[in-house]
Amino acid sequence: MASIFSKIIAGEIPSYKVAEDDKHYAFLDINPLAEGHTLVVPKKEVDYAFDMPQEDFKEWTDFARRVAIAQKMAIPCQRVGSAILGFDVPHAHIHLVPLQNEGQMNFKNERAKFSPEQMTEIAKRIATAFNQE
Amino acid sequence: MASIFSKIIAGEIPSYKVAEDDKHYAFLDINPLAEGHTLVVPKKEVDYAFDMPQEDFKEWTDFARRVAIAQKMAIPCQRVGSAILGFDVPHAHIHLVPLQNEGQMNFKNERAKFSPEQMTEIAKRIATAFNQE
Repeated sequence: MASIFSKIIAGEIPSYKVAEDDKHYAFLDINPLAEGHTLVVPKKEVDYAFDMPQEDFKEWTDFARRVAIAQKMAIPCQRVGSAILGFDVPHAHIHLVPLQNEGQMNFKNERAKFSPEQMTEIAKRIATAFNQE
Repeated sequence: MASIFSKIIAGEIPSYKVAEDDKHYAFLDINPLAEGHTLVVPKKEVDYAFDMPQEDFKEWTDFARRVAIAQKMAIPCQRVGSAILGFDVPHAHIHLVPLQNEGQMNFKNERAKFSPEQMTEIAKRIATAFNQE
């Protein structure tokens, strides 16, 4: 069965898209730790990140690097933090979170709330920065 | 002034080394979130990970991927989680943490304690796996 992320990539489940190329898709986490929290996934489904072939892994992390640069341009923050955990959805994903402080990168934290209009605007801001890189 | 990690790389401060090549150095975190918690740093000092040139970044994350594979072979765990935060030491570093569950990847958690003998043995186990890849 296709993962929820594969359904998002296929457009069967809507998402706030931030960036895309032929092998990767980046979209806002709907339960964000902070404004602009983004998930970066490979289109080819793989569960465990470190099972990815070397070249696929390098292209994926490089794509995430480019998204992180766009986030830093678009969202007021000190740094963009990143994490790969993978205990929730069995489709490898990199969390990219614009941070003011280290404590915000805690998956036990209460999540931020934004309206659909705000999420659309946040995604658009990051996407615009991504396309200007 | 050289960062604490540059001093570790230079051997001025001792460390439990896990892996090394001409551009990267990996060693056990002395305040580990879990057994085998490793830091992977580029030898060339840079503060913010996403400021690294594209090729340097790709080589660094690929080196970390190889360390993570060795950790999974050497340390009983469900997955190796990774994180880049960067609010503590101004020398980019990837945390690689062998995890039993997602909750262990929380930098507010109490840290695990191992004796110098145990740390030496843990580092050796990961290094052996790394060299067998």
